[in-house]
Amino acid sequence: MSDNLRGACIIGQSGGPSSVLNATAYGVISEALASPNITNVYGAAHGIKGVIDTVLYDMASESPSELKLLPYTPSSELGTCRFKLPDPEEEDEVYDRILEVFKNLNVRYFFYNGGNDSMDTCEKISRYMKDVGWECRVIGVPKTIDNDLYGTDHCPGYGSAAKYIATSTAEVWKDSMVYDYGTIVILEIMGRHAGWLTAASTLATLTGCGPDLVYLPEVDFRLEQFVNDVAKVKAERGSAIIAVSEGIHYADGTFVSEAVASATDGFGHAQFGGLAARLASMLKQQLGVKVRDIEFNLLQRCASHLASKTDVEEGIMVGRDAVRRALSGETGIMVGLRRDPSSPEYRCTTIPVNLSEAANTEKLLPLEWINRNGNGLNEKFYDYALPLIAGELDRPTEDGLPRFARLVKDKI
Amino acid sequence: MSDNLRGACIIGQSGGPSSVLNATAYGVISEALASPNITNVYGAAHGIKGVIDTVLYDMASESPSELKLLPYTPSSELGTCRFKLPDPEEEDEVYDRILEVFKNLNVRYFFYNGGNDSMDTCEKISRYMKDVGWECRVIGVPKTIDNDLYGTDHCPGYGSAAKYIATSTAEVWKDSMVYDYGTIVILEIMGRHAGWLTAASTLATLTGCGPDLVYLPEVDFRLEQFVNDVAKVKAERGSAIIAVSEGIHYADGTFVSEAVASATDGFGHAQFGGLAARLASMLKQQLGVKVRDIEFNLLQRCASHLASKTDVEEGIMVGRDAVRRALSGETGIMVGLRRDPSSPEYRCTTIPVNLSEAANTEKLLPLEWINRNGNGLNEKFYDYALPLIAGELDRPTEDGLPRFARLVKDKI
Repeated sequence: MSDNLRGACIIGQSGGPSSVLNATAYGVISEALASPNITNVYGAAHGIKGVIDTVLYDMASESPSELKLLPYTPSSELGTCRFKLPDPEEEDEVYDRILEVFKNLNVRYFFYNGGNDSMDTCEKISRYMKDVGWECRVIGVPKTIDNDLYGTDHCPGYGSAAKYIATSTAEVWKDSMVYDYGTIVILEIMGRHAGWLTAASTLATLTGCGPDLVYLPEVDFRLEQFVNDVAKVKAERGSAIIAVSEGIHYADGTFVSEAVASATDGFGHAQFGGLAARLASMLKQQLGVKVRDIEFNLLQRCASHLASKTDVEEGIMVGRDAVRRALSGETGIMVGLRRDPSSPEYRCTTIPVNLSEAANTEKLLPLEWINRNGNGLNEKFYDYALPLIAGELDRPTEDGLPRFARLVKDKI
Repeated sequence: MSDNLRGACIIGQSGGPSSVLNATAYGVISEALASPNITNVYGAAHGIKGVIDTVLYDMASESPSELKLLPYTPSSELGTCRFKLPDPEEEDEVYDRILEVFKNLNVRYFFYNGGNDSMDTCEKISRYMKDVGWECRVIGVPKTIDNDLYGTDHCPGYGSAAKYIATSTAEVWKDSMVYDYGTIVILEIMGRHAGWLTAASTLATLTGCGPDLVYLPEVDFRLEQFVNDVAKVKAERGSAIIAVSEGIHYADGTFVSEAVASATDGFGHAQFGGLAARLASMLKQQLGVKVRDIEFNLLQRCASHLASKTDVEEGIMVGRDAVRRALSGETGIMVGLRRDPSSPEYRCTTIPVNLSEAANTEKLLPLEWINRNGNGLNEKFYDYALPLIAGELDRPTEDGLPRFARLVKDKI
């Protein structure tokens, strides 16, 4: 493999947005623009779809001062997609098209920023290019608020979502404890299979305003225990703040959101409200108390005004290192994060992770971080998560509002 | 009326929490603690209830450094209540009790911080004390995120809620526009009778990411027009972001939230989901598109991490001036805010407002600020609202989390 492979690069963003997806794009784009061996830097509109349809933006046309605002701009500025590539062994057409584009534009570097599915896309493209003998360095750059990617200590995007969830939980706690009668609040938090985001609500405990009970997908949900848990906290404290993951499920795998909805007509129709609304209604009936439900919804993944400084810096770092690693010859890897176990202070560097491992393994919360009752986290989780939410961004504002990057998006 | 009235003061907080209610408490408490004529500063637990039940905290026992954190602490640190006093002419018992407490503790200054109902409480106590000849200066201090208090340019609490709503709308816009297919998002915003908060979503337009359509309680809602509006925007832009006030109603006064819920069984039961969820479900059926609903919920009134610097400073100012005005002999007033019309830059000072006027008049959005179609705001609103969300707080944090005030709350 040549040490001086010259050619264009493509960066694509894929999967659900996050607060630091554009920080990583900035890391890739700024590093690539500064690299003599990279002749052109193309941003793919809507991930791999932009490659297939040749909707590519010339990043050299962007003003450097606007590019510098990308780390403070939430979501996916190039556009994203949820597009699963077929197996290269089974279907050639789409790969032929990608190869054609790569050859036409002399694309020698491909960076794909996303979660598990994006790493799968990356792995397939890497394998295909190798098979057909087109030298192209393919690097996956991790991103997911869910934090469930294998091979990396954590994922860029998680720290900011966790900071938003912990801060908002503390604020809602403050709001809910002001009356002289008890209140029950249920917070619904994202995470279909892994409880990392819901666990983040417990960091609010360090402000004195943490949730009383936490229910995670890692632990089979038992409705009876849930009602008993809440009744007990309510009796002891008068109030209760409860965090539930959208992905909690019964022992047989049925999602509680679906089961509660269909269990009885009194629980309404599937399209109304979320899990928290349904659990709230059920608690009202069973305990005869007022229950409020709050869904953090999209805000938890796009509230860049509360992004973690550490997370944004690491988001830029994985993007930058993806380019550096590609330039030095690495390919077929995801850039992971490794926490230095020997450093007394938190320190992270990047490491290469095998793409196929990253693509097909889901990282769940370690069971030994969850308490015996399955409704809370212990200090091992705090030790893990606290460094990831550290640091306040000095984000640019205009008239009291966020100043997002404004890209011209010149199509080639 | 004596110019040197010496005695204790009580401060109470009432009504729904806000991000700057404690900023105002800080203004009152710090100014009162520094005033030689004020012998004791008592915080009432849960507003007027704490007076009646004599649950009062000695604010002199609090550490000054913790008190200084109050402006960064959301909600109502002394506790709040929703307790409507009877007319003093009709019922004496509760007033006898309040007078007894005032006499026992030599309370000569009473500050009550809240919205319309709290000004009503204030007005009644002021009238009663005058009638029975107990010299006590009674001052209302405004607070409500709803911004519907009469006699004041705006209310402390509104600016921070508006900043949260505008910022979150822009962030959700960014999140929703990333796929290559259209998205419809409905944002549900507080405000039962007045549209000030929902209007704040339009400030996001200045970031390039504002809502396409806005529905306010000031304009009678027509379901057919709503569906047509959305269909038109969707056809033109592919996507649509819609902000609705929880208080939108039909011409006959029926709240849309109730009407949509009961119109047909298909819309589920009243306890499930909010207005946005119901409108989303209806749009899905009528337009056959995916619609997401987001309720800003409690966050819009307690997200002190995004409080407006202007709002927090004004919150402190109204509290401080309430004490200064009381010490100089004023009573039976609410401290209002007046915007200087002659100043080219935004400037606000405090003015006295008659308590009975403030208590019984609701201030709605001027109709001339609303566009002809009744689904948007014009620049007059921006001119009014932009200064209120200005400025970023340098808020204290610890380990990446908010550092709230920790009061000891010594009961007397």
